[in-house]
Amino acid sequence: MATEVTNGVEHNGADVEKKTVTFTSVKTQVFVESLKANDAVSFYKSAFGAEEVNRVSYSKRKADQELPGLLSAEIKLAGTSFIVSDLSDDANALVKTVSSGMVFCLETEDVEAAVEKAVKAGAVADGEISEGEGACCGGRVGKVTDPYGVVWVICTPSVAKKSANVEA
Amino acid sequence: MATEVTNGVEHNGADVEKKTVTFTSVKTQVFVESLKANDAVSFYKSAFGAEEVNRVSYSKRKADQELPGLLSAEIKLAGTSFIVSDLSDDANALVKTVSSGMVFCLETEDVEAAVEKAVKAGAVADGEISEGEGACCGGRVGKVTDPYGVVWVICTPSVAKKSANVEA
Repeated sequence: MATEVTNGVEHNGADVEKKTVTFTSVKTQVFVESLKANDAVSFYKSAFGAEEVNRVSYSKRKADQELPGLLSAEIKLAGTSFIVSDLSDDANALVKTVSSGMVFCLETEDVEAAVEKAVKAGAVADGEISEGEGACCGGRVGKVTDPYGVVWVICTPSVAKKSANVEA
Repeated sequence: MATEVTNGVEHNGADVEKKTVTFTSVKTQVFVESLKANDAVSFYKSAFGAEEVNRVSYSKRKADQELPGLLSAEIKLAGTSFIVSDLSDDANALVKTVSSGMVFCLETEDVEAAVEKAVKAGAVADGEISEGEGACCGGRVGKVTDPYGVVWVICTPSVAKKSANVEA
């Protein structure tokens, strides 16, 4: 902490403060073939005893689908949460660019600062920060690919999202 | 706990007990291009403020390498641990079969029962359970691929591993 003192009163330097980003959560998000996410959640329950913490479906189904896709199901296993989502070819840019099937979702109140810091450290930003329907988060969503090919979704916490409808 | 009682006292069936598997931890393991894991750890520290919890290097370097590879570095970020490892073409069967770059490591004292349960639920076991040098675990190591293509390493907890030398 840089401390600057004037007239005997201490205060923290604004430049240093800007660099401090607090992350509140990191979760792995697993994408499965479209419309298999529901099955996958059932599998994780029966195979590993996972618990479903919450789920958000797309509000519309596609013409050739009986059921709407699963935007996200949060699963808890051995004290850790991860997210299972249908891989969708039309939902949003996030999903489109994922090739490995798994990403990290990193929650923070300051998405801009977090993305900026990651890019300074060597990551590549994928697109602009946007108001997003990212499956693991609500509100503002940014995305970076690190120098090792791993995708990090950086977003505000998902509290708001849970009651939102999401257009597929 | 199986309690067996006779003369009018209730007891739990052994069959039910067999099906109960307790998982103590689940961690995401990220494989990066060989000999980049050390850089990746540095990146996660500077980009996201991650802390390194522990690290295990291979005990030998290859002839064309200046440094031994990194079997595992455990990183803590926003209260969650994940593991970064060098992708190795000769270390073990685990690493060889990973294509997505990320797997889940699931720790339990009863690897056999956990693998059996996962297979009954629809996973495919990859090879036999073995005494392994799996990067995220020590002791007995099994591996299954779930019906959605995600690899789950199921292993005994990694306490013993931390002091072990690992042959690359």
